[in-house]
Amino acid sequence: MTASYPTSLQPLDERGRQVLFTSARTSNTFSDEPVSDEQLAEIWELARWAPTSANVQPLRIVFVRTTEGKARLLPHMSGGNQAKTTAAPVTAILAADLEFHELIPRLYPPRPEMKDVYAEPSFRRESARYNATLQAGYFVLAVRAVGLAAGPMLGYDRAGLDAEFFDGTPRESVLVVNIGHPGENPWFDRLPRLEQDEVITWA
Amino acid sequence: MTASYPTSLQPLDERGRQVLFTSARTSNTFSDEPVSDEQLAEIWELARWAPTSANVQPLRIVFVRTTEGKARLLPHMSGGNQAKTTAAPVTAILAADLEFHELIPRLYPPRPEMKDVYAEPSFRRESARYNATLQAGYFVLAVRAVGLAAGPMLGYDRAGLDAEFFDGTPRESVLVVNIGHPGENPWFDRLPRLEQDEVITWA
Repeated sequence: MTASYPTSLQPLDERGRQVLFTSARTSNTFSDEPVSDEQLAEIWELARWAPTSANVQPLRIVFVRTTEGKARLLPHMSGGNQAKTTAAPVTAILAADLEFHELIPRLYPPRPEMKDVYAEPSFRRESARYNATLQAGYFVLAVRAVGLAAGPMLGYDRAGLDAEFFDGTPRESVLVVNIGHPGENPWFDRLPRLEQDEVITWA
Repeated sequence: MTASYPTSLQPLDERGRQVLFTSARTSNTFSDEPVSDEQLAEIWELARWAPTSANVQPLRIVFVRTTEGKARLLPHMSGGNQAKTTAAPVTAILAADLEFHELIPRLYPPRPEMKDVYAEPSFRRESARYNATLQAGYFVLAVRAVGLAAGPMLGYDRAGLDAEFFDGTPRESVLVVNIGHPGENPWFDRLPRLEQDEVITWA
């Protein structure tokens, strides 16, 4: 994929802003309309282009969509998240690969020696989780970009889920995201957002 | 802002996908074309709608754009990041507010008692940094959405920068982002991205 970048940048149009930011909502119910393999692949095709530190891309994705997969996942979700996770046609487990540094010589050819920057395990874990979390933000917006509803959830037992899905691997979950089409009464009332003067200062 | 959400979701069109994901690039040089207050405010107007856990929104932003502000910032940037940080008309310091839980009764009225979930300082700090990092991902894409180039950087001395800008406050930086219009030769060759079968598994 080598699309050239315009010299003069264009803003996103109003409809695009609605799809990604201003009208999009976290879905709390899902219809039984299926999600195709192509749509799921398309999410990564978008999200993967957004930047990470030294291009490390530690995010790994498990798309859970079989009855067996859901049965492994559900016991680790909090009570309030079980019904929607059951209803969603797909639930993505987003994880960080703590051994991401092994790929640096291929992913960051200008400075393959960056691999050694991440030799120390606790710094490497922090970097893996940090960059995978940045990518989780991109992922949520990419789900919306392909025309699907996302329901990100931190309400789950991380140790239990990680033991079930990532035992013996260098992976740790960072977020679980339901994906599908909105069902009945999918949106709560919109919660307030902070105003500019509460968030922004100038220097 | 109470835009209603369409019942049937729409995907982002091809041009929108280019602006945010597939054609957008991290800018390494900046022209002297200015960035307006309105454009900077617009970035937050978009980014603030994307989801955080229990709607906590711990991200805080310092837009550094004065000569004095840049002089405080530059000594803490790594050598390779100083020239571009000097050239960018605005540099955003993205920080996490570690006392975010104080706002929960206002931000999450369905469950004001969630404030107490974050009583323990180390869990609260982890949650603040986690959600601010998710929001940093949204922020980078929102910069692109308003038609500006973003240059996110982790190459800086966090302790030094935080002491300079956040001493005596409950804030900690999570990312520094140059913002502006691309200058001469703004893009490196595009670095490789992981393929689907390296990132995605199915369950």
